[in-house]
Amino acid sequence: MTQRRAPEGIPVLIALNPGAKDTLSRQIYRALRDGILAGRLAGGLRLPSTRALAADLDVSRNTVIAAFDQLMVEGYVESHVGRGTRVSHTLPDNLLHARARPSVHGPASLAPNAPSARAELLVGYARPKSSADEPAIAFAPGVPALDLFPWRTWGRLVAIRGRAMGPAVAGYTDPLGYGPLREAIARYVAVARGVTCTADQVVIVGGSQQGLDLVARVATDPGDSAWMEDPGYHGALGALIAAGLRVTGVPVDADGLSVAAGRVAAGRVVAGRVAAPSRLIYVTPSHQFPLGITMSTPRRLELLAAAAEMRAWIVEDDYDSEFRYVSRPLTALQGLDRDGRVVYVGTFSKVMFPALRIGFVIAPPALLPAIAAARQFSGTQQATLEQMVLADFIGDGHFERHVRRMRSVYAERQHDLIDALRGECAGLVDAAASGSGMHLVGWLAPGVDDAEVSRRAASRGVDAIPLSAFAIDRGTGRPGVLLGYAHVDRPAMFAAARRLAAAIRESMTHRSSRLRVERDESRGLPA
Amino acid sequence: MTQRRAPEGIPVLIALNPGAKDTLSRQIYRALRDGILAGRLAGGLRLPSTRALAADLDVSRNTVIAAFDQLMVEGYVESHVGRGTRVSHTLPDNLLHARARPSVHGPASLAPNAPSARAELLVGYARPKSSADEPAIAFAPGVPALDLFPWRTWGRLVAIRGRAMGPAVAGYTDPLGYGPLREAIARYVAVARGVTCTADQVVIVGGSQQGLDLVARVATDPGDSAWMEDPGYHGALGALIAAGLRVTGVPVDADGLSVAAGRVAAGRVVAGRVAAPSRLIYVTPSHQFPLGITMSTPRRLELLAAAAEMRAWIVEDDYDSEFRYVSRPLTALQGLDRDGRVVYVGTFSKVMFPALRIGFVIAPPALLPAIAAARQFSGTQQATLEQMVLADFIGDGHFERHVRRMRSVYAERQHDLIDALRGECAGLVDAAASGSGMHLVGWLAPGVDDAEVSRRAASRGVDAIPLSAFAIDRGTGRPGVLLGYAHVDRPAMFAAARRLAAAIRESMTHRSSRLRVERDESRGLPA
Repeated sequence: MTQRRAPEGIPVLIALNPGAKDTLSRQIYRALRDGILAGRLAGGLRLPSTRALAADLDVSRNTVIAAFDQLMVEGYVESHVGRGTRVSHTLPDNLLHARARPSVHGPASLAPNAPSARAELLVGYARPKSSADEPAIAFAPGVPALDLFPWRTWGRLVAIRGRAMGPAVAGYTDPLGYGPLREAIARYVAVARGVTCTADQVVIVGGSQQGLDLVARVATDPGDSAWMEDPGYHGALGALIAAGLRVTGVPVDADGLSVAAGRVAAGRVVAGRVAAPSRLIYVTPSHQFPLGITMSTPRRLELLAAAAEMRAWIVEDDYDSEFRYVSRPLTALQGLDRDGRVVYVGTFSKVMFPALRIGFVIAPPALLPAIAAARQFSGTQQATLEQMVLADFIGDGHFERHVRRMRSVYAERQHDLIDALRGECAGLVDAAASGSGMHLVGWLAPGVDDAEVSRRAASRGVDAIPLSAFAIDRGTGRPGVLLGYAHVDRPAMFAAARRLAAAIRESMTHRSSRLRVERDESRGLPA
Repeated sequence: MTQRRAPEGIPVLIALNPGAKDTLSRQIYRALRDGILAGRLAGGLRLPSTRALAADLDVSRNTVIAAFDQLMVEGYVESHVGRGTRVSHTLPDNLLHARARPSVHGPASLAPNAPSARAELLVGYARPKSSADEPAIAFAPGVPALDLFPWRTWGRLVAIRGRAMGPAVAGYTDPLGYGPLREAIARYVAVARGVTCTADQVVIVGGSQQGLDLVARVATDPGDSAWMEDPGYHGALGALIAAGLRVTGVPVDADGLSVAAGRVAAGRVVAGRVAAPSRLIYVTPSHQFPLGITMSTPRRLELLAAAAEMRAWIVEDDYDSEFRYVSRPLTALQGLDRDGRVVYVGTFSKVMFPALRIGFVIAPPALLPAIAAARQFSGTQQATLEQMVLADFIGDGHFERHVRRMRSVYAERQHDLIDALRGECAGLVDAAASGSGMHLVGWLAPGVDDAEVSRRAASRGVDAIPLSAFAIDRGTGRPGVLLGYAHVDRPAMFAAARRLAAAIRESMTHRSSRLRVERDESRGLPA
């Protein structure tokens, strides 16, 4: 800290810190600028000469000259031959004054700005994500076996495309995605999922979450009503809320989303919101998230008929349909749709790896112009490099091989999970084998608080998301936890199941003792 | 086309096309399923045996079995020993009937779905982008000299990171971006732009367009009022419209956006919209888009004061600030802000290359929770690979070197453009040298229709966007065209200027003859 008297008696207070991120010149510039803005250095005031200030501050004269130059460029000071460098008169006093108050004389007297109401609403729905730096633990759902991905092949393809990058592929890109990848996806979904589309209908997005956000915005207006499965996918709820929709949770039965229950709910007030005919229906027909139910064909037809009647869009989220273990997968709902009401959303986060950030939307032709416009103004296209590499990976047959291999690994891991639950959680967790997916629901005994179990499991290093966290309006009413098994090997499965069992027992003991206390209290006995 | 009588007298009409994308088995499945859904094959009807149908269609029996299996899995048919395969009774008749109408008996009788009103509105603002496959031509604005980018270095860094990809960096990522890149950007903007921030405030986005979309959604609510410069950046207008804002175009004078004019406009009806105090003000203070004006320091202070008074957010789009040729750049507006009202948006599309799809938002702390929530539900994070490679590119000093080199190339090209305009467009185009940026405004004579010039230039292979295309409410009232020079070498510059001159002369001749005709007509003379 150097305090000196400048030639004309101006106290120039400049604190220089040689170790700071800013250069010394920048620090001098800032100190003088802030003095001017705060009104301490008034208009017309003569600044010390660069030579004198350099000597005072013990820095080179060039350092001071650079600071003065910047102040001059920005109009804070003026320099006239023979008159030296003076603080500008051109900065209006009232502005300086208005600026001076909040920044210098204590806390801001002007109210700070607030985020939008729509954003504040979303903050309430957001969940802290586990840090990207920590590897996923058992039983995080939706995490693929990243250690079994063919990284050498991928790295080789990346290197080839990376080295070939140049002007021809570096410019502004098609907002709907890289052409050859769109074609590869159209071929793949036709064969693997019975989806009927051309490559023009395929829109590359940064994962299914981005697809849901996009579709919600182009298919609905703020204030519209939407249906989604209850319990249902939390990310979809967030995307629908972000789009300004009123969301009704529609119960799920053994055939999938109950269209009949949706109709009933549409006439009523649910969770404080007036429900209405739906403009958008979000479903996971292949493997309902989180319950794992496959929507039956009659229910699919009923859903399509209801959508036609309400003129609703159906969003089919086919998030993990690749992993089907027993029979061949059911054709996608999209393949049954004759009227162009189903929007299909797929992702490579599960089959490939999440950091790839590539998913896709297959849109009815009627939505394509709206999607193209929305993409242009939301700037959501992905980098070209990954799209090219993924197209190569599919084209060379690596994708198909990887899916086949993972299908057998995950089938085995589902067996392992069931073994582990039988061995370690007998009488505590009930889980039925499923023909598909990457997680099972571990049902808990009625009355057990699944959120409590989840908290206790977390403190033991086990990730067991409570089923109650996926309640949209009411949920299932039955406690359970989600048990993702795709990334967990057999020994880790048993170890985690053992810790989960301890967490459940702890929750139950805690609960029964709490119940006993409550009972005793209600009898008027001392606790 | 094969039409046969099935054993029980059912006409089974199956058109097999061996060259189709679908397998033969899939074609059989579809034909039968569609017959069932259309009601042509009624519940209880016995299908021909797989052997008979295979013989009829002249395909292998396994092909037919696969089709029947799929129909069975999906519940369309049932098989009982001794009773053969029959069409299911479980599909409710009314659904089949409802489905049958639109899909089979002619055009859909049910109204098709419509995109949202907000999306239809955007379609009206969208502009066809030139195809990604065609290289940019003179004088497309905002396109860097892609042939001068250090592709070998970039390719090497991509290959290194690509080969090192593995489980540790392949999982779900931080929605705000890759940590080391956020740190590198925070250091860079502090030194180069005088932006005051920590790495926590840096949010990685897929280019500045995505940044604008994000900020509009977290900072404003539908129906809020926004100001932007008039003429102004069309992409920003789209993002604000997409967010449901009422946008007021505020005139630009020699100091930048006229805060005084904004205040006047706020009390009036502008372009059919009732203007109101702004909740968000979009500006390009370093280099106004499209006019190229640098906002003066007094105007910056006035703008900050007005924002404080209205509690408005300021969005500072610093899209090409790297390219400053004469004096050092003015400190960013963000660096003057003491109250956390300025959101800074930057992009690597211009300094690096557009297909990279990386930009950044530097947000005041008060907006960060809202941004984190919005990012979680919009799924807009970019792939990790490019973020890592860019962080390396900056960290190794390649970025700084490239910017320095491009700065001198672009300064020279701006000279070349002015030479070319003097040589080829004398008396037709007036363009003043600018201290920064990647384009100049070529002013045309009053009365010339710049949209007409642009169309005629396009037909001659020259890209000259008319200034009138950037009018928000009124624009400048003066005709002009945007002349991007960064990607154009000297010979191409002269060739394009020659063709532009021809286009202008053509427009003027056309116009004067049209005027003459109109004048003649008004005098009652034959045309």
